[in-house]
Amino acid sequence: MKLWSMPSSGNSYKVRLLLALLGRDCEIVDVEDSSAALVSAKAAGRLPFGKAPVLELDDGRLLPESNAILCWLGEGTHFVPEDEFARASMLSWMFWEQNQHEGVIAVRAALQSYPARRHLATPERMAELLERGHALLQVMEDRLAVHEWLAGDAASLCDICLYGYTHSAGSKGGFEMGRFPAIGRWLDRIAALPGYRGLDA
Amino acid sequence: MKLWSMPSSGNSYKVRLLLALLGRDCEIVDVEDSSAALVSAKAAGRLPFGKAPVLELDDGRLLPESNAILCWLGEGTHFVPEDEFARASMLSWMFWEQNQHEGVIAVRAALQSYPARRHLATPERMAELLERGHALLQVMEDRLAVHEWLAGDAASLCDICLYGYTHSAGSKGGFEMGRFPAIGRWLDRIAALPGYRGLDA
Repeated sequence: MKLWSMPSSGNSYKVRLLLALLGRDCEIVDVEDSSAALVSAKAAGRLPFGKAPVLELDDGRLLPESNAILCWLGEGTHFVPEDEFARASMLSWMFWEQNQHEGVIAVRAALQSYPARRHLATPERMAELLERGHALLQVMEDRLAVHEWLAGDAASLCDICLYGYTHSAGSKGGFEMGRFPAIGRWLDRIAALPGYRGLDA
Repeated sequence: MKLWSMPSSGNSYKVRLLLALLGRDCEIVDVEDSSAALVSAKAAGRLPFGKAPVLELDDGRLLPESNAILCWLGEGTHFVPEDEFARASMLSWMFWEQNQHEGVIAVRAALQSYPARRHLATPERMAELLERGHALLQVMEDRLAVHEWLAGDAASLCDICLYGYTHSAGSKGGFEMGRFPAIGRWLDRIAALPGYRGLDA
């Protein structure tokens, strides 16, 4: 099993985090943004949708999309709730993450972090992303103010998924995380899970 | 069972389409874009993430996110492949749809269709979305040129999911669908499934 992984990307990190939490061995191939390794992985057909992460199975089959990889690796583990509605809610959060959260929280961080994108970071765009991001974080805050985890009553794939970009939303994205104390406690709970590893570990 | 549904939205349509294909009864509550019904559904707490569609179960529990609703309704039916890798691939396409396809294909159509958004439809933005949309449609075309369905060897939830905005990508989004003949044949195959209903049916 081999993971084509972008070291700086939350989407790739969430898969590395689940692998660590599950104690699963996996060869990691780094394909950083704008790197020759990324270009050559694409040219070699290892990134079916043109992006990392991609999980390559031992028989060569390729699975793209971070959240689909989480579902594949998590199947049958305690990170997938047995209760069918909790499982459905887990998927709701994961689709929301790709459709809403990532396009604001991760994008604002990327506009600040990647030199090639800095010309797109106009004051108007950054202010709009800040406001939209705070509204999205409030959706998580509202849930986490009354529940320990996003779906069901234990850590599941959607917590790992949303940890990917939320844990650095303050430091990289410039969001005011002090406004979201329940998210802060949830981030601490995830970092305390056995086997946890940070983005740069 | 009740579906809070936006009549003009592909995300809501894909759920109505699956219900029709499965022959399932469901009360449909229309909450059109910019309507008073949408505002009051939000105020009443029926839209947990602030958007339609949402499936309300008979006991009042709420499930947001179109693709999570498809998974909930589709579980145990022939629209979810038995093969575990085909099932994982189905989810890959569904996450890709929310993260990549919808943000380009649906957004370009919305910029042309909804009067309130027309001021955002600058020539530069529309040209950029056209180019990106053609690249995304090519990803589907490449798969469908050699397989009848997007995942596995039968129609599955990801076909219904991607049909939602792809079937009107030409008429509403202005994409040049003649460049994608395999997508055209796949659209025809979906429209021929027993129980099929169109967007306005």
